[in-house]
Amino acid sequence: MRLTTRLLAASALAVSGTLALVAPAGAQDAATVERAAAIRDAALSRNIALDYVTQITTRFGARPAGSHSEQQAAAWAAGYMREHGFQNVRIEQFPLVGWERGEESAAVLGDHPQRLVVAALGHSPGTNGVIEAEVVRFETLEALNAAPAGSLAGKIAYVDPGQMVRMQDGSGYGPLTRIRGAGPAAAAAKGAVAFVIRSVGSDEHRMPHTGTTRYVDGVVPLPGFALAAPDADQLSRLIAMGGPVRISLSSTAHTYQTVSQNVVGEITGATRPHEVIVLGSHMDSWDLGTGAIDDAAGGAITLAAAKTIAESGRRPARTVRVVLYGSEEVDQPTNTGNGGGAYLRGIGSEVENHIIAGESDFGADRIYALGLPPGAQGSDFAKAAGRVLYPIGVLPSADPELHGGADIGPLAGAGVPVFGLNQDGTRYFDLHHTADDTLDKIDPAQMSQNVAAWAALVWLIADSDVDFRAMRPAAQAAH
Amino acid sequence: MRLTTRLLAASALAVSGTLALVAPAGAQDAATVERAAAIRDAALSRNIALDYVTQITTRFGARPAGSHSEQQAAAWAAGYMREHGFQNVRIEQFPLVGWERGEESAAVLGDHPQRLVVAALGHSPGTNGVIEAEVVRFETLEALNAAPAGSLAGKIAYVDPGQMVRMQDGSGYGPLTRIRGAGPAAAAAKGAVAFVIRSVGSDEHRMPHTGTTRYVDGVVPLPGFALAAPDADQLSRLIAMGGPVRISLSSTAHTYQTVSQNVVGEITGATRPHEVIVLGSHMDSWDLGTGAIDDAAGGAITLAAAKTIAESGRRPARTVRVVLYGSEEVDQPTNTGNGGGAYLRGIGSEVENHIIAGESDFGADRIYALGLPPGAQGSDFAKAAGRVLYPIGVLPSADPELHGGADIGPLAGAGVPVFGLNQDGTRYFDLHHTADDTLDKIDPAQMSQNVAAWAALVWLIADSDVDFRAMRPAAQAAH
Repeated sequence: MRLTTRLLAASALAVSGTLALVAPAGAQDAATVERAAAIRDAALSRNIALDYVTQITTRFGARPAGSHSEQQAAAWAAGYMREHGFQNVRIEQFPLVGWERGEESAAVLGDHPQRLVVAALGHSPGTNGVIEAEVVRFETLEALNAAPAGSLAGKIAYVDPGQMVRMQDGSGYGPLTRIRGAGPAAAAAKGAVAFVIRSVGSDEHRMPHTGTTRYVDGVVPLPGFALAAPDADQLSRLIAMGGPVRISLSSTAHTYQTVSQNVVGEITGATRPHEVIVLGSHMDSWDLGTGAIDDAAGGAITLAAAKTIAESGRRPARTVRVVLYGSEEVDQPTNTGNGGGAYLRGIGSEVENHIIAGESDFGADRIYALGLPPGAQGSDFAKAAGRVLYPIGVLPSADPELHGGADIGPLAGAGVPVFGLNQDGTRYFDLHHTADDTLDKIDPAQMSQNVAAWAALVWLIADSDVDFRAMRPAAQAAH
Repeated sequence: MRLTTRLLAASALAVSGTLALVAPAGAQDAATVERAAAIRDAALSRNIALDYVTQITTRFGARPAGSHSEQQAAAWAAGYMREHGFQNVRIEQFPLVGWERGEESAAVLGDHPQRLVVAALGHSPGTNGVIEAEVVRFETLEALNAAPAGSLAGKIAYVDPGQMVRMQDGSGYGPLTRIRGAGPAAAAAKGAVAFVIRSVGSDEHRMPHTGTTRYVDGVVPLPGFALAAPDADQLSRLIAMGGPVRISLSSTAHTYQTVSQNVVGEITGATRPHEVIVLGSHMDSWDLGTGAIDDAAGGAITLAAAKTIAESGRRPARTVRVVLYGSEEVDQPTNTGNGGGAYLRGIGSEVENHIIAGESDFGADRIYALGLPPGAQGSDFAKAAGRVLYPIGVLPSADPELHGGADIGPLAGAGVPVFGLNQDGTRYFDLHHTADDTLDKIDPAQMSQNVAAWAALVWLIADSDVDFRAMRPAAQAAH
């Protein structure tokens, strides 16, 4: 019998501010919901999230995928999990092509030379010396693609689509990453010697946002650089003033063979331990900052949520598994080089017992909406979850949650349902992939609310027998 | 007869929102005040400030004192003044010891190496290779001064007084610059090999604030570095975790002999041209940003104020002189290396005809208060100025204005009265002396209000015969 059926009676009751459910027909379910509220409130008052994110970012700093730092941080995190009562803690290694930033610089040349602040894009090749060339500016990827063949021979392609729009759900990001990913290949196709993009971010600081570019035939085709927003403004103004603008670019970035690893630990289920709920985040970070919001915060939130459940006085029926994925920040020709793919390969047929997966990889600000798999939307389970989460400001999401992020994407692709606790990303893209992604950007109060939402929701799933795979979308979703 | 007397009658009239003076006994003065209001409103609607600050920061980027860039920018600015109708435009050269940042880097050493974001402090010597040493942390300059003799032998002194307080009047800055200035000498006295200070700023970005340090016997005694706020947090946390923390520091900064220059131009007075009102700001900037708020904005504001007056349809009686001082951002053993001292030497006995001086060197945000010389406070002149400035949100300042800033300080020292249009500095020290001091940080609407306040006040002074030197502080200031 499912939680969804049992809670039907309770869902008609008024709730104001705090959870005020009277016992429905099934006492076990009422207890589950009440315990979810208690877990929520416990997480609000204290958790290990701040401790974890402080320690990992302070001890190890940046943790690029496959770096010694990521490896050391993973070993430390496994110890941290054990120390905090997690079971079956293990490290799963996998090979990948690592990328190391070297020295890099850029400048406007000519009568009035000026330094430009750039960051090589992830997996960009080095420049093999200094490139000095004229810049040709485009406002869109389409315009670059439409340039005549050979028209950029010996030149630098510069795409400046304007500043990213700052949105709660981060939806301004996707269209711009398409340019970042495809830009080097598009520029190479027209004969360009390098590719420059206005840094994909919503801030106006001289703090470029790095990020991946797309492999073609096993390599990124051209050196690519993100230009900090104020520098992009400056370069575009200089071009608008007329006359050719020449710049220099240099980078000693290079790739290397290495290993990364997932760190896995769990709160083993009391009665149905083979049924697994996966909470994902990633261990690696870009090299410029210390990866506090991207994504030590996700590890902190999911670890704290699981620990809050473990300390609630009773274990849930199902297993809550926390995975700190290695090497999320890569975009290689195959999926072999990232932690999500490695985890899926590692579990083999166990994937059938994976009830649901959720990913925390969007900073540490507050959760504002819950997205459930399509079949669960408007269900009694959703109503129960809504009652527990409403008092901390979480509403149902309008969008069904289908895909998760890069870490749980492979699980989703293999048929595991996913949920999303949508968090406020308004300031996320001010910081993400920059040197400014540091501990001080975490707001402890918002992070506690975030942990509370995770802990309560995961408890509800883990101490029930709800089967998200079996749920079918209703023809007309309930309101 | 002075404006102060003539305006007595008008000062009793009610004013609400816009200036509504009826003609007092002296029609000329009423006309002056009315024209001040018209000039104020003209400045609000348009001015050249945004054009100037855009052009100079875009064309020349950073303009370090004595650099080729500062020299080129000065020549360009002289042309800009002529083009915009300024008279007697001239460039006054003077020698100085310039300072050039080279390559610089810092890192935490040990098992978990981490990059630290630093900026060498102005006029710091280079490190002559890489310094690797243990860090000793102090919270105050006093604590560093109290360290036993020789106790820092071979070590790096690190002063972390905590984050600067963000204040409208910038008053959090002074106490911390004392540490920055005196730190290298204090550290050297205890045997240290380098000095590091938490970057003096109110932001939390990985954008260190550079700034001057104090010369001792003709040189800055030790290499000194500003550590960006998040990195200062990180280093202090690592030290608090226990065990010695070693860091590396390197810098190839060096000094060199060069010249800087003041650019001077004026709106010549119609009837008493030998009486001069000086509006000051500085041309040079630190090397990290493009010096938009520090201090291309000051040049933009004072040039736009003077031009608004020139275009008002009638020239004022007195001369309004705009000086774009060279080499403000230095702190050398003598005053010979800065533009303020050079200007004073250049004018000789003409200083007697300098009616008053004002300096715009605090960004481009709105003016909120007017500070007049002690004798003018509560005077009829102050009341007239108050009426013109009140509609744009400017109140009388509680503090008498005595000293000005570094540019007009030498004039003040020679007996020239000064005024201050206090501007909102709440966000100034987030940006000042960092790479982030760029054009996008200018708010055009606030800058227009700023220009309006300058233009209206300067008109009131320039078209009157008020003598600030002759005014004596009242025993009891009027309210």
